[in-house]
Amino acid sequence: MSRLDSFIARMQAQRDCLNFLKPAVDRLSGPILEVGLGNGRTYDHLRDLFPRRDIYVFERQVAAHPECIPPDDRLFLGDAHEALPRAARALGATAALIHTDLGTGDHDANMAMAAWLGPALDALAGPGGYILANQSLEVARWRRLPEPPQVPKDRYFLYRVS
Amino acid sequence: MSRLDSFIARMQAQRDCLNFLKPAVDRLSGPILEVGLGNGRTYDHLRDLFPRRDIYVFERQVAAHPECIPPDDRLFLGDAHEALPRAARALGATAALIHTDLGTGDHDANMAMAAWLGPALDALAGPGGYILANQSLEVARWRRLPEPPQVPKDRYFLYRVS
Repeated sequence: MSRLDSFIARMQAQRDCLNFLKPAVDRLSGPILEVGLGNGRTYDHLRDLFPRRDIYVFERQVAAHPECIPPDDRLFLGDAHEALPRAARALGATAALIHTDLGTGDHDANMAMAAWLGPALDALAGPGGYILANQSLEVARWRRLPEPPQVPKDRYFLYRVS
Repeated sequence: MSRLDSFIARMQAQRDCLNFLKPAVDRLSGPILEVGLGNGRTYDHLRDLFPRRDIYVFERQVAAHPECIPPDDRLFLGDAHEALPRAARALGATAALIHTDLGTGDHDANMAMAAWLGPALDALAGPGGYILANQSLEVARWRRLPEPPQVPKDRYFLYRVS
């Protein structure tokens, strides 16, 4: 499997999981959080799926397509390590959906990140809220949900706050 | 259709076209050219498809994944406007397959590029060779081929040198 194959599969899994979660997220109130803006494609997909929802975005430094940059008052700039607690103070534990796609190709760095990322996201997740992550995150009050059938196992990680 | 949808469709079309061309390219001799390395995913796919072929890569400035960087003697660095004629002097019109994925979201800039890119690639394309381009290129001795059936019309452009 080439990196092109694996990239396409990852993007499809991401989209399939977001589309799969939409009806459940529609039944909840609270904002949507996109952790890691990147080029803004997933943010654009979230805007499409949830046109009337507040979508807050976390990004170290914005480098997205000009049409995919959120309004200033929906953007938490800076290192996620610091920006997530800042957002938790502003928004509380209210999010209906958190999508996180942070991390790099560096496995050890990703593992170290998971240790602080789970609790930091937990402080933002509303009751019954959903978390979709590109890596495994262990948080006591989350339970893992099965992915939609077309998504290969352990490519994406779905959780629900109990 | 969100930018995520459209990006996935574009990546799938690219891969489907490359896979579709493989048997025909296998019947030709000559190198393969990848014009625009980017993150190196497509280069990796080409290496997978054609493990015993010389693959030459053109890139202004390499910023690919470390595992997807071609050897120095397979890399033409610099602006394509200058690097393509330089490669034509070194390699001649010998390529079995040229894949080009240059360009930006700027439609006018892409149109202006097509005017010089077609002839510059033509000077590298071997007899009966194939060109796969992310934009329409008009060269007198090329004829356009139909895309594989699963690829939406005019998303990718296939040509064969007559």
